[in-house]
Amino acid sequence: MDFIEKLTGASRKNKSLLCIGLDPDPKLMPEKLSVFEFNRAIIDATSELVCAYKPNLAFYEALGKEGLDALQRTVEYIPDDIPVIADAKRGDIGNTARAYATAIFDNMKFDAATVNPYLGFDSLEPFIEYRDKGIFILCRTSNAGAVDFQSLLCDTEEGSRPLYEVVAVKAGEWNNHGNIGLVVGATYPDELKTIRQIQPDMPLLIPGVGAQGGDLAVTVRYGVDSQGEKAIINSSRQIIYASKGKDFAEAANKAAAELRQHINRQLPGLKS
Amino acid sequence: MDFIEKLTGASRKNKSLLCIGLDPDPKLMPEKLSVFEFNRAIIDATSELVCAYKPNLAFYEALGKEGLDALQRTVEYIPDDIPVIADAKRGDIGNTARAYATAIFDNMKFDAATVNPYLGFDSLEPFIEYRDKGIFILCRTSNAGAVDFQSLLCDTEEGSRPLYEVVAVKAGEWNNHGNIGLVVGATYPDELKTIRQIQPDMPLLIPGVGAQGGDLAVTVRYGVDSQGEKAIINSSRQIIYASKGKDFAEAANKAAAELRQHINRQLPGLKS
Repeated sequence: MDFIEKLTGASRKNKSLLCIGLDPDPKLMPEKLSVFEFNRAIIDATSELVCAYKPNLAFYEALGKEGLDALQRTVEYIPDDIPVIADAKRGDIGNTARAYATAIFDNMKFDAATVNPYLGFDSLEPFIEYRDKGIFILCRTSNAGAVDFQSLLCDTEEGSRPLYEVVAVKAGEWNNHGNIGLVVGATYPDELKTIRQIQPDMPLLIPGVGAQGGDLAVTVRYGVDSQGEKAIINSSRQIIYASKGKDFAEAANKAAAELRQHINRQLPGLKS
Repeated sequence: MDFIEKLTGASRKNKSLLCIGLDPDPKLMPEKLSVFEFNRAIIDATSELVCAYKPNLAFYEALGKEGLDALQRTVEYIPDDIPVIADAKRGDIGNTARAYATAIFDNMKFDAATVNPYLGFDSLEPFIEYRDKGIFILCRTSNAGAVDFQSLLCDTEEGSRPLYEVVAVKAGEWNNHGNIGLVVGATYPDELKTIRQIQPDMPLLIPGVGAQGGDLAVTVRYGVDSQGEKAIINSSRQIIYASKGKDFAEAANKAAAELRQHINRQLPGLKS
């Protein structure tokens, strides 16, 4: 089963476009729990409410060996029918990109990864060659600094357009295996709308609702494909740190259920 | 001692602009040696010939826990007066970039890191805030795919210029602590010349000589600052895999000494 099938399967089974970002921060986690114990409790409490999980590798790398150990155990623990996206934002030249792809797909067994387009096609190709895996290319990121380069107007054969649009177009040209998606922040709704128009069928990974302030109704409306699917709306802190007390897993369940419902309310075609 | 002082110190002491990329590939290494044993032998054989070492994290991550263990031991083993650059090409939003900076600078004790500019200033700031560390922003990379986005002509207030030039200019605006450098591939000499003109004083990390085909004489001439310094010319495979036999360390010593000499021949002002 390839990534897209797995994503669609989980999304339909759980009636959910919600992805939970598993980003452990010991300062925000309940005391006395290890990172894996924390993640396990969050997964147990939310695995029937999500279409995917997305651990960001930075938070595990910051915790050293124990962190990477916890990451590996977390990926293994997530139920097999729910895809796991490595938020790694890797990008390097061919030979080296291949080593990163090995680390993420072969060693750590992720179903998908985020990658950075700055180095161009040959830096992404070693990832794209894993046909069963999902490759999410950074397009328009959710942060304020996204405008520094991504908004620059570039000369193209079709006239002047911002860099993130050029990335969205190129992603389509490179999508021979049908396994490419794009990362588009919820904090830039107009750009999200444009990118969805450029790539009507690609899965879009959409961070930035909740803590980062993206408007949910607009995000859902602009983010989904014509079937009301293939938007992967990520929330991390709003869910996993809904409570810092002993009830953190219960609170995460409640926050995830509410967010899933808020998303589904924007989708009249979806039975939920 | 900050990164620039350490770099200049090692470069002057060893009369060298050569940086060796420590990129372990078990298929190319002599059998029966662990990654750390291999690196240790390379370091012992070359530490008086270099201005820096540059492990690329991908190759260690591809080897799993043992790889990351070997990376840590390698960084610790490198003599204190030689700077170690983490070729990591990280880039993520503020909160997450901070976690990557923690992993690379606080945990792993690297002296410098490469970062990807696509996400803009706030993704680089957590690195730049480490004033004593060197931050090398990808500008013009050495691979063929570099042209896909980095060469796009962008509208700026100063007229139309390629994206990599915009990155080079921005890097200067962000360089309040004097700790920013740029990554510029030797495979694009005209671009290297232009970037050195835009940033006459910044350290330039220059991969792409040797295996990737960059012309050494031109690279040195265009890459150095007005003092004949601050070009960090990286070679990996050409040196560390100069021989696959028992004499690999001796061969690496010879290859490094030759390359250092070839570089220095282009620098009439340097006594060597």
